[in-house]
Amino acid sequence: MKNFNIAAGVSPMTHVIKQAGKIALLASMTCAISLPVMAAQHPNLVINQQDVTAMKQAITQPGSFQNAFNTTQSNVDKGLAQPIEVPVPKDAGGGYTHEKHKSNYQQMYDTGIIYQLTGDKKYAEYVKDMLLQYATLYPTLPLHPMRKSNNEGKLFWQGLNEAVWLVHTIQAYDFIYDALTPAERNTIETGAIIPAALFLSEQSPHTFNKVHNHGTWATAAVGMSGYVLDKPLWVERALYDLNLAKKGGFMRQLDELFSPDGYYNEGPYYQRYALMPFVTFAKAIEQNEPQRKIFQYREGILLKAITSTVELSYNKLFFPLNDAIKSKGIDTIELVNGVAIAYGLNGDPRLLDIAQQQHNILLTGDGLKVAQGLDNKLQQPFPFVSTLFRDGQQGDDGALVVMRQGKATDQAIVFKATAQGLGHGHFDKLTWQFYDAGNEIVSDYGAARFLNVEAKFGGRYLPENESWAKQTIAHNTLIVDEKSHFNGKLKAANKNNPTLHFYSAKQDLTIASASIDTAYDDVAFKRTLALVNIKQRDAVIGIDIMRVTANKPHQYDLPVHYQGQLIDTNFDRQASLTQLSALGTENGYQHLWLLATANLAKDKAANKLAKVTWLNDNGHFYTHSTLVNTNFNNATNEQMLFTQLGANDPDMNLRQQQSFIHRVNATNHTYVSVMEPHGEYNPSKEYTLEATSNIAGLIHHQQAELEAVQIRFTDGQQYLLAINHADNAVTQETQSVISVNGVQYPFSGRAELLDIKEFK
Amino acid sequence: MKNFNIAAGVSPMTHVIKQAGKIALLASMTCAISLPVMAAQHPNLVINQQDVTAMKQAITQPGSFQNAFNTTQSNVDKGLAQPIEVPVPKDAGGGYTHEKHKSNYQQMYDTGIIYQLTGDKKYAEYVKDMLLQYATLYPTLPLHPMRKSNNEGKLFWQGLNEAVWLVHTIQAYDFIYDALTPAERNTIETGAIIPAALFLSEQSPHTFNKVHNHGTWATAAVGMSGYVLDKPLWVERALYDLNLAKKGGFMRQLDELFSPDGYYNEGPYYQRYALMPFVTFAKAIEQNEPQRKIFQYREGILLKAITSTVELSYNKLFFPLNDAIKSKGIDTIELVNGVAIAYGLNGDPRLLDIAQQQHNILLTGDGLKVAQGLDNKLQQPFPFVSTLFRDGQQGDDGALVVMRQGKATDQAIVFKATAQGLGHGHFDKLTWQFYDAGNEIVSDYGAARFLNVEAKFGGRYLPENESWAKQTIAHNTLIVDEKSHFNGKLKAANKNNPTLHFYSAKQDLTIASASIDTAYDDVAFKRTLALVNIKQRDAVIGIDIMRVTANKPHQYDLPVHYQGQLIDTNFDRQASLTQLSALGTENGYQHLWLLATANLAKDKAANKLAKVTWLNDNGHFYTHSTLVNTNFNNATNEQMLFTQLGANDPDMNLRQQQSFIHRVNATNHTYVSVMEPHGEYNPSKEYTLEATSNIAGLIHHQQAELEAVQIRFTDGQQYLLAINHADNAVTQETQSVISVNGVQYPFSGRAELLDIKEFK
Repeated sequence: MKNFNIAAGVSPMTHVIKQAGKIALLASMTCAISLPVMAAQHPNLVINQQDVTAMKQAITQPGSFQNAFNTTQSNVDKGLAQPIEVPVPKDAGGGYTHEKHKSNYQQMYDTGIIYQLTGDKKYAEYVKDMLLQYATLYPTLPLHPMRKSNNEGKLFWQGLNEAVWLVHTIQAYDFIYDALTPAERNTIETGAIIPAALFLSEQSPHTFNKVHNHGTWATAAVGMSGYVLDKPLWVERALYDLNLAKKGGFMRQLDELFSPDGYYNEGPYYQRYALMPFVTFAKAIEQNEPQRKIFQYREGILLKAITSTVELSYNKLFFPLNDAIKSKGIDTIELVNGVAIAYGLNGDPRLLDIAQQQHNILLTGDGLKVAQGLDNKLQQPFPFVSTLFRDGQQGDDGALVVMRQGKATDQAIVFKATAQGLGHGHFDKLTWQFYDAGNEIVSDYGAARFLNVEAKFGGRYLPENESWAKQTIAHNTLIVDEKSHFNGKLKAANKNNPTLHFYSAKQDLTIASASIDTAYDDVAFKRTLALVNIKQRDAVIGIDIMRVTANKPHQYDLPVHYQGQLIDTNFDRQASLTQLSALGTENGYQHLWLLATANLAKDKAANKLAKVTWLNDNGHFYTHSTLVNTNFNNATNEQMLFTQLGANDPDMNLRQQQSFIHRVNATNHTYVSVMEPHGEYNPSKEYTLEATSNIAGLIHHQQAELEAVQIRFTDGQQYLLAINHADNAVTQETQSVISVNGVQYPFSGRAELLDIKEFK
Repeated sequence: MKNFNIAAGVSPMTHVIKQAGKIALLASMTCAISLPVMAAQHPNLVINQQDVTAMKQAITQPGSFQNAFNTTQSNVDKGLAQPIEVPVPKDAGGGYTHEKHKSNYQQMYDTGIIYQLTGDKKYAEYVKDMLLQYATLYPTLPLHPMRKSNNEGKLFWQGLNEAVWLVHTIQAYDFIYDALTPAERNTIETGAIIPAALFLSEQSPHTFNKVHNHGTWATAAVGMSGYVLDKPLWVERALYDLNLAKKGGFMRQLDELFSPDGYYNEGPYYQRYALMPFVTFAKAIEQNEPQRKIFQYREGILLKAITSTVELSYNKLFFPLNDAIKSKGIDTIELVNGVAIAYGLNGDPRLLDIAQQQHNILLTGDGLKVAQGLDNKLQQPFPFVSTLFRDGQQGDDGALVVMRQGKATDQAIVFKATAQGLGHGHFDKLTWQFYDAGNEIVSDYGAARFLNVEAKFGGRYLPENESWAKQTIAHNTLIVDEKSHFNGKLKAANKNNPTLHFYSAKQDLTIASASIDTAYDDVAFKRTLALVNIKQRDAVIGIDIMRVTANKPHQYDLPVHYQGQLIDTNFDRQASLTQLSALGTENGYQHLWLLATANLAKDKAANKLAKVTWLNDNGHFYTHSTLVNTNFNNATNEQMLFTQLGANDPDMNLRQQQSFIHRVNATNHTYVSVMEPHGEYNPSKEYTLEATSNIAGLIHHQQAELEAVQIRFTDGQQYLLAINHADNAVTQETQSVISVNGVQYPFSGRAELLDIKEFK
């Protein structure tokens, strides 16, 4: 049975596995039960012997794989020249012993793979020596002095780091296994690996069984150790929880942590992080037990999770949803691993497009395939197309809608109608972002954090992450009476999701609509967003309808956090010239300086369209045009407030972001806006094109379930975005007719953009 | 004599030229005198027949020249499909007729060169038809209805544009000359070219004779027309002014507009602009009359002007001195022409490094040489080394000192001790900038202008250019009593320059010192700046000593306009949390919001070193450490003010730049500071290195002409920057001895960095 990993088809394993629960208790006491099918050659986790053979051949040929090998070997050689140090654990994250143990596992991993590729014993010796030191140290360790109560470690302050250590260390051990004597193996296994694996499993049942990414790291570490040490029970436990009860474990994590569309409910920033143990362990399962068809599980959820992480990026950076540090993107090591493994499985040449931008060739079998694909120029453009990512285990906890035009830097709208996303979630129901020409245009603040910068609150999430970044006003969505959604209470937020009413994507028109009536006591709001490519005009615009209904009057604020320099507005602003005041006192408002105010109702010249134009660093102009439903009898009921972030920020922790806030006092109100990229500012070549907006007028029409936005351009061209909001199924064939100014306009499907002149 | 341009050596021309003055008056009346030596083949301006032969060959071969040809031909073909339009002039800059006449001359030029390269008559026809329309229109034109009084045009509102039109048009005419009948030539010359040339010369004597870049464009246009129309007198006038009196003209411009080091006194932004007519006309002179040795004139001043423009850039962008729009850089068309012509002359492979970054191959003989050089990978790195650029015609009006480390993105200091730079100059005597890792770290605001953006003050310089950008507080230099240098009066500023005391550049240490005592009535200040590479520490730091002396007490402000996010200070700041006020009421202070104040005298924990650390977008940390010469009896005499730009800015015209201002109330004061790049913030790879400064202490020593800054690092290492300020000549061999704490430290030359421990 030694070689079952390369035998296809059903094996007797399936029967054995079903029986495994019965022996669990015994196994946990002896740690010595070996199911005969589990024995494996070494290495056989992420990398197997065939991989090694192919890689050894590849490093003799010029190419990107050889380059990657040379770089790693050179780094490893530098490490070999340094004395090995395995210090007694003392420091928390960022401290010396913490960083040393982190670099140690990386070094063991890298040195181990170089041993496999060169066969030079000195590399195996080095790894062995370090492992022996761990084998001496580990049994002496109490819980870490700086431990965190909910997830304790021994080598590290957190069990999470301990699991990451073992995921790397077991692979390093697997690489040098054949170079060790049985006595050395015994010393290392009994001194370091077995105690670490038991600590992470039996001795940390809460984390091990938890359906959470900490649980994924722990089960990956223990399961992979099970393969190497020939302890199939460890693998079973990793897959099905400590008691094999399937209440936790890797399979349960695969069931629950991703939506059916591969969306991770904390958002792409944490999805990227969570991906690593998933794909690593899954690859090890695939190598050892291909009959489990792990990559086909749940309709290929792992591949979906990898590709959706790529899809949740714009111009290489992840959409900064929830607590997200904005500089993270597709070149992170987690996604380098994910893309390589996915490419190894499906050979999709579009993944090579991403791999090429990652500039990081892994020394694995899959890394070799990627390198060869790139060397042979097999890559094809990765399609960045409109996609619906349903949220929740069953896909019914709202959704993230990404509207785009095909390329990574084309116009894109991100419409966030997802569930809260737990503790890292923001109170930002139905917020949106707009991207164009490589940059954020209407943006999300992301997280307030300087990762690992000690002077900035120890590198942790800053206090301003709570007081600003999570608050509703920090996002581009509705704030009622200056209070955040769910009054900023996480428990209520976790319980209530928006409802996605429809999503429709066809050539040149993507549209979605969602609503929520639980974010505020008596206020419901429904947002419909569309990304429209008007080919005749060579224009791609965003259309935004935010309909708010309530039982009594409220103050409604709808901010646009814009990126760029304000160029112009078509209404007068009263700027604060010599004094600034904070806009409010709580819920994030205390962080905004009020720069200027405009009374939209008063300014009749605005002609019912309030326009704000700014210039982004990408050299393009952007105009946000919004309908002013002015009640001229009440001159103060509609304002535009211009703000800048930075008030109540004694440590200067916040970035200087600017926004304008459309404030309306009303019971019911519908905001109707168009986001329009236009023109170009090129001071280098000394030309400026189309610095002013081309939108001349907007009219909003509502007829029961049918809705339309009529858009008139400055040159007289007119279009009608007609929408069918019916709750029942609407297909592309469904025909509707909306009447505008006495003219009947038929349209099909959920929505259509009509050239009104065609009807004349 | 037809081919004298390829004959080497002395020709009889030199004699004829010397006689030319005698016939000037007659010539100006008849415009018909033709000296026999001036006849030439066509084309023979920037491009000659040999160039055409070589280019025709090159476009048959794959390569970057062929690519450039294909691109231009494709654009030209699009133009040919459009009707020709030569409208009656009506609009000012940016308006329709203005832009049309601009695109017409560019199109004639491009179409003409494509005719030369293809021989296809349709291209010549198109240029001819457009020229004939100009020949019909031009004689009917009065002065332009929107003309500017000091520099009138006919086709354009400014004579400057008219000259640029003729520089292009005469080249286009030269390209199709041989395809025209004598009658057609006569029509075009008498209708368009002769009247335009006479308008720019005889009829605009003030501009034509002016030693100014407007004069350069006019003389280039007329001189080049002289070569094509075989009117040597026009050439003489272009070179030596209308009366051949040498009071104006191109040669005089070459004498006066550049310093002996090739520095243009308005700064690199305008130097780049001025370069175009200089190099274009010079190239035409070289082709037609090589015996003039125009490129050798004044020790090769034209080549110096080209290379110095390149040298006055950082990471591809020009240093933003005086009125400068920051996005201009080495890829501007003016420098593409300059670099190509320079490479054509000297074949310096280091120029190809710049050409490669310009991504713009010209369809000229020199453009072909560049293309071939790049295709053959001949480029060598352009050396960005420390350089002294003396200012003024004789090089004695102060200087710009650029300190750098060899590469375009290495650390650099720009020390501006130049003359004012006329109307575009800023009141910024002895200001400095610091650059590192590709970015501005301590920066200059540049100009307040959105070029050609109508909504921003018609695209002209904004009012804030006067009220902020030109004021002293907008720069990193001393402001006394909140008043700008010379009280912001241009006339006084133009008359008074700083004095450069010394400049010394050696391996790992560049240092310069300059002073000025005319910027304020009774206050003199002297600044000494050094860029030091401490190889043992792998650290490059800037050292800044600003010594201020006066007759009575004043308020001294020394700002640092920093680029990045504030990370930390080693002193307490009192931030304004809910209200902000403008820092002052005039001289630029009215534009600053006061964010926070720190009383440096009060905070004894500062230990006499005030440190401010920020994080730049380039991912590196920067700490500015400055000595606090605290008088503890007077707790308010030394403060640090933290400001942000944006007050009194009703149109939101200013960028949100931040600064800290070291304010001292004293009669005499010496600011001693160190600028230190350190560490790295890499949230993508999740590591942060050396986020805190390594400077532990500074001590300033002054002993008559000798001065020293003692620098102690946190690990105990100590260095002494010893400086000899003697007025007399100091060479590298000059020996000095400075005594510190009773120890004698000998050093040689102007300055030396001593490892103090070596002396123990």
